[in-house]
Amino acid sequence: MRRYAILAPAQFAENAKTAHGVIRYSNDETVAVVDPSCAGRMVRDVVPYLESSAPFVASVADALQFKPTSLLIGTAPKGGKLPEEWRAEILSAIAAGLEIVSGLHDMLGDDPQFAAAARRHGVRIWDVRKPPDVPLFSGSAYDVKAPVVLAVGHDCAVGKMTVMLELARAAREVGANAEFVPTGQTGIMIAGWGISVDRVISDFATGASEHLVIEAARRNPEYILVEGQGAINHPAYAPVTLALLFGCAPDALLLVVDVKRTSMETYGTPTLPYSRLIAMHEDLCATVKPASVVGIALNTFGLEESAAAEEIARASAETSLPADDVVRNGAARLWEAIAPALIKRHPLSAKVVA
Amino acid sequence: MRRYAILAPAQFAENAKTAHGVIRYSNDETVAVVDPSCAGRMVRDVVPYLESSAPFVASVADALQFKPTSLLIGTAPKGGKLPEEWRAEILSAIAAGLEIVSGLHDMLGDDPQFAAAARRHGVRIWDVRKPPDVPLFSGSAYDVKAPVVLAVGHDCAVGKMTVMLELARAAREVGANAEFVPTGQTGIMIAGWGISVDRVISDFATGASEHLVIEAARRNPEYILVEGQGAINHPAYAPVTLALLFGCAPDALLLVVDVKRTSMETYGTPTLPYSRLIAMHEDLCATVKPASVVGIALNTFGLEESAAAEEIARASAETSLPADDVVRNGAARLWEAIAPALIKRHPLSAKVVA
Repeated sequence: MRRYAILAPAQFAENAKTAHGVIRYSNDETVAVVDPSCAGRMVRDVVPYLESSAPFVASVADALQFKPTSLLIGTAPKGGKLPEEWRAEILSAIAAGLEIVSGLHDMLGDDPQFAAAARRHGVRIWDVRKPPDVPLFSGSAYDVKAPVVLAVGHDCAVGKMTVMLELARAAREVGANAEFVPTGQTGIMIAGWGISVDRVISDFATGASEHLVIEAARRNPEYILVEGQGAINHPAYAPVTLALLFGCAPDALLLVVDVKRTSMETYGTPTLPYSRLIAMHEDLCATVKPASVVGIALNTFGLEESAAAEEIARASAETSLPADDVVRNGAARLWEAIAPALIKRHPLSAKVVA
Repeated sequence: MRRYAILAPAQFAENAKTAHGVIRYSNDETVAVVDPSCAGRMVRDVVPYLESSAPFVASVADALQFKPTSLLIGTAPKGGKLPEEWRAEILSAIAAGLEIVSGLHDMLGDDPQFAAAARRHGVRIWDVRKPPDVPLFSGSAYDVKAPVVLAVGHDCAVGKMTVMLELARAAREVGANAEFVPTGQTGIMIAGWGISVDRVISDFATGASEHLVIEAARRNPEYILVEGQGAINHPAYAPVTLALLFGCAPDALLLVVDVKRTSMETYGTPTLPYSRLIAMHEDLCATVKPASVVGIALNTFGLEESAAAEEIARASAETSLPADDVVRNGAARLWEAIAPALIKRHPLSAKVVA
């Protein structure tokens, strides 16, 4: 069990998806957050739904009074580069004997200064995104016995990980053995295993995805719930989405949509309507290994209750699929609605699609 | 100008796509091929269409009489691993002062034994697949002035690179300034620049594709012809295909099909018919930056003349697009047929697709 100090200077409120995920879903405890812009307040004062009373502090030095074991880099900036002004804080944590946990693309363990300091102080640097060596895709994922469900969405950062964590919990609460499969840095920090597929060399990204599903299958779950990444029409990150779609060889897809989102970041690319999203994913899968969208998880965060209910009803009416917001309404209902559709399809069905 | 000895023991005839591409299209000369199984014969005796009189020899030592400057690793095995039994031959080439040119995933320059030998003998190791640092996709490819044409296909190794090299030559022969953009190891060896996109970290694969197009645009070409990779429904390599499709921001697509191919390697995944291939690519592009398939390049290698003509006529009739085999019939006709369709589309058209 770790006790985290989280480093997110000036970024915790708006730009710390990793920190929020760990505070909300990890079994590890967060004891303090380093963000001088909020110093003196508590996490729940700034991000109420995290329900955490961990204090904000101005520096790593100030965090030490709360006896952290580890410093977590709490943000995942685009491109994954370390902001240079964080270097001194990380060195100060290493000097205090704290383990460093980072989900950046920049590998902190490969940085000569951090590596030397870590050696000197006997501290571990866990670069969560560093992938293991994985083989090429082989097709062995087609032989996995449990049905594989993959979250797909209409954009990045809409809540795919959250939905799959909530559904796995709901499944376990009704006695079903569901295994959550992490495919990105935050999921890995929460579950303690996984591969950040976006960090894998492109030729091996489907192989990494397959490897994750096979790893999960070794634990003999009844269901395998895979955290998705990106969106199939995301101008920058769609290749990772497609690697999961083919490499995990899912039997079913769960569509995750933030109803407030209409376009992607700065690219101007529109997010797609339900009908087109469903058709596009099913069409791609049909030619490799068929999979259907079995439900829709809506992110209605910030909407009034009535507006949220309307969006959920509209999604269901437009698609004839079960739909719900699993954060707002709990995941039990959506799990109950989709579970009957999670059956294992014939592994060789790809061969008969012409 | 290099003088290549090519290393392809027991593999030249059947499994040396890289060697064949370099012999056929590079300005560098191939002076010998190390393949003991063919020793005593000439390249054209084994692979007639290469039209090369370079001799096969049994070892690197035997190749030295032909005064090579460089040893080219002539095959690209799945997964890109170096066969251990080739190590001695490579060390013997380094000891003889030959530059080493390799397109393997295994980076020979990072191998301690090769690196030490290269240092000792003052020899360069060019790992063609080693990618430069590239930024994330930014959308700046949308501002490139010349129309960008990307080759897409129904499988790997059907001739996408060959088609784009032939079309670039045909274009230049009628006075059009067409720039070939290499995206894989063989293309890079031939053109002397490029990025092996399959080797780039997944998150950066669209950025690498964008970078290539921007590099090509710096040379002020009238047309940019991008070598494609994989296939959009390839179970293992589709993510690389999609990275090029979005990252290069093509204005037009050229479909490359080997008419003899009906399924992919060992996966059992069927290759798709023209109509479905066209719809799938155009559907994906429509939501990001619209691009249409403007022509079909058939690979009819091995077919009788009449059967080839029939396949070409069928492709054209089924799709209402220009179709030809540019190796069998020359590329002038297909270039003339597609050139009028290669117009620059509005860079912001993505924003109006709903």
